[in-house]
Amino acid sequence: MGLLQQVFGNGARHCQVSLPTFDDVQAAAQRLAGVAHRTPVLQSSTLNRQLGAEVFFKCENFQRMGAFKFRGAFNALSQFTPAQRLAGVVTYSSGNHAQAIALSAQILGMPATIVMPHDAAPLKLAATLGYGANVVHYDRYQEDAQAIAQDFCAREGQVFIPPFDHADVLSGQGTAAMELLQDTGPLDSLWVCLGGGGLLSGSLLAAKALSPHCAVFGVEPEAGNDVQQSLAKGERVRIPTPVTIADGAQSPQVGAITFEIIRRHVTAVHTVSDAQLVDCMRWYAERMKWVVEPTGCLSLAALLQAAPALRGQRIGVIISGGNIDSQRLSQLLNS
Amino acid sequence: MGLLQQVFGNGARHCQVSLPTFDDVQAAAQRLAGVAHRTPVLQSSTLNRQLGAEVFFKCENFQRMGAFKFRGAFNALSQFTPAQRLAGVVTYSSGNHAQAIALSAQILGMPATIVMPHDAAPLKLAATLGYGANVVHYDRYQEDAQAIAQDFCAREGQVFIPPFDHADVLSGQGTAAMELLQDTGPLDSLWVCLGGGGLLSGSLLAAKALSPHCAVFGVEPEAGNDVQQSLAKGERVRIPTPVTIADGAQSPQVGAITFEIIRRHVTAVHTVSDAQLVDCMRWYAERMKWVVEPTGCLSLAALLQAAPALRGQRIGVIISGGNIDSQRLSQLLNS
Repeated sequence: MGLLQQVFGNGARHCQVSLPTFDDVQAAAQRLAGVAHRTPVLQSSTLNRQLGAEVFFKCENFQRMGAFKFRGAFNALSQFTPAQRLAGVVTYSSGNHAQAIALSAQILGMPATIVMPHDAAPLKLAATLGYGANVVHYDRYQEDAQAIAQDFCAREGQVFIPPFDHADVLSGQGTAAMELLQDTGPLDSLWVCLGGGGLLSGSLLAAKALSPHCAVFGVEPEAGNDVQQSLAKGERVRIPTPVTIADGAQSPQVGAITFEIIRRHVTAVHTVSDAQLVDCMRWYAERMKWVVEPTGCLSLAALLQAAPALRGQRIGVIISGGNIDSQRLSQLLNS
Repeated sequence: MGLLQQVFGNGARHCQVSLPTFDDVQAAAQRLAGVAHRTPVLQSSTLNRQLGAEVFFKCENFQRMGAFKFRGAFNALSQFTPAQRLAGVVTYSSGNHAQAIALSAQILGMPATIVMPHDAAPLKLAATLGYGANVVHYDRYQEDAQAIAQDFCAREGQVFIPPFDHADVLSGQGTAAMELLQDTGPLDSLWVCLGGGGLLSGSLLAAKALSPHCAVFGVEPEAGNDVQQSLAKGERVRIPTPVTIADGAQSPQVGAITFEIIRRHVTAVHTVSDAQLVDCMRWYAERMKWVVEPTGCLSLAALLQAAPALRGQRIGVIISGGNIDSQRLSQLLNS
């Protein structure tokens, strides 16, 4: 188990945290068995023919609450002590982690408070409330959500579970890639949606163990390429909250733990434009009959961009989620 | 094997045809093995909780070419003699049967000619052409597509495979319900989309054999309730081509063979409005992340209408298909 010299955003606190490993991903899979869906791995013979490759889609849009985030949230919350369960959980999220925490808390019978941007997708807000969580709003372009959430915990003794920068969260997320690789066997490349790095870092742990020669690519929106910049600079870069339709990838900075894993193991990070995301959404809807949210289209968009170099490959694509309300879906498909 | 005194539309020709049975559905399943997808049977825990029932969705929107129609078409074409394969196949269809015949013909290496309405959904037209079929257009409100297709066969010696009123076609369609019932075991009720009756009659053969106490409901659009009228009258009623968003259920008259099976075995036929179909499309997109075409929403719309009477039931819902272009999807979701 590796060690990480964690540097907080304000530079004031340093501490040693141990990096999770594939053992933690396997332990997460045990906790999630019978609770999370084992989502299907699906193919398109038309796409395979077009690309001269074999593409396997891991459909986390069909996961409980509509995104991979359930895996990490439930893995974290299911390890709470009885006292912690009683106090409850607090987090911040633009949407999918909010629903994931809310649903996991509901299943485990504990209170949940979610700090959500006031302009969160209506469907995500409604679902979070529907799972019985208490929602506190903030301005994502002006306020610091993490500070608000941590304030709550300080005042009320609840446990803060961040959306990505947490060993239990990212270990849970790694179970998606683990299941994919169990189903497909070793792959030549794996394409993963990238916001704060929870899904990518978990996927890297799984791929390193189950398919060590697989190239693993993170994909972020052009407007928010903070991980690309961070890798180039060798340290985490913070950018202004990016304006992109990929609302699940609007984090201004990658996590400290997730970055350390990404830095060590990722093959490269690619970026794609919002227009490419819309093209992929349309293709998923028309050809696959799947609703995929903009963030979930990152992986396919980058793969298609790189397609000529991938002929003959066996390729994994993780679709992160499908939570988009029908009005927004309608608007984007028509754009 | 039952016998049917078939009366053609013009009243001039009578002939005896034998009604297909569950044996024919099983034989179709053999022909389709490894060619058609065994589509997933999926559930929504939220819906189950809301209804106090257990609902199993058979997702034929994930079938090859996006609809159950592939099953019947391939089952019919795979039984052609070598001479018939050489001559090729002709059919007429508003869309999904067109694609099904085109794809099946492509797989089997035979020429296909499809008579399609000039206002067919663009995606369905494009896909039909994409599978290499020859397309002939007609006006669905003015001309008789079947007559045009049969003219072709008379002139060029090809084999006419109608979209629903054919033993091999409906036996193939029955494999969807057969797979569903194999996966779920006996059900209390089964809800099936109804246009010309191919899917419903095939489903009735499967349900009668595998779940004899299961109530089986056909669902047609309010604007085109010809089967409801036909059952009331005891004979097939022809109506003007109905104007409804359920473009796969615009047949003006149920088939002779399909009606005979429906008449004998169906529990009842329900109707739903276009507005109810749009509500279901939205629900499928937002909650299940599935794209379902309007016709494919018939079954769920009727189930929801009847829900209070279904508490405690184990319920099957066949989703017929998902072929809708993104512009139309966008328009309907926004309506």
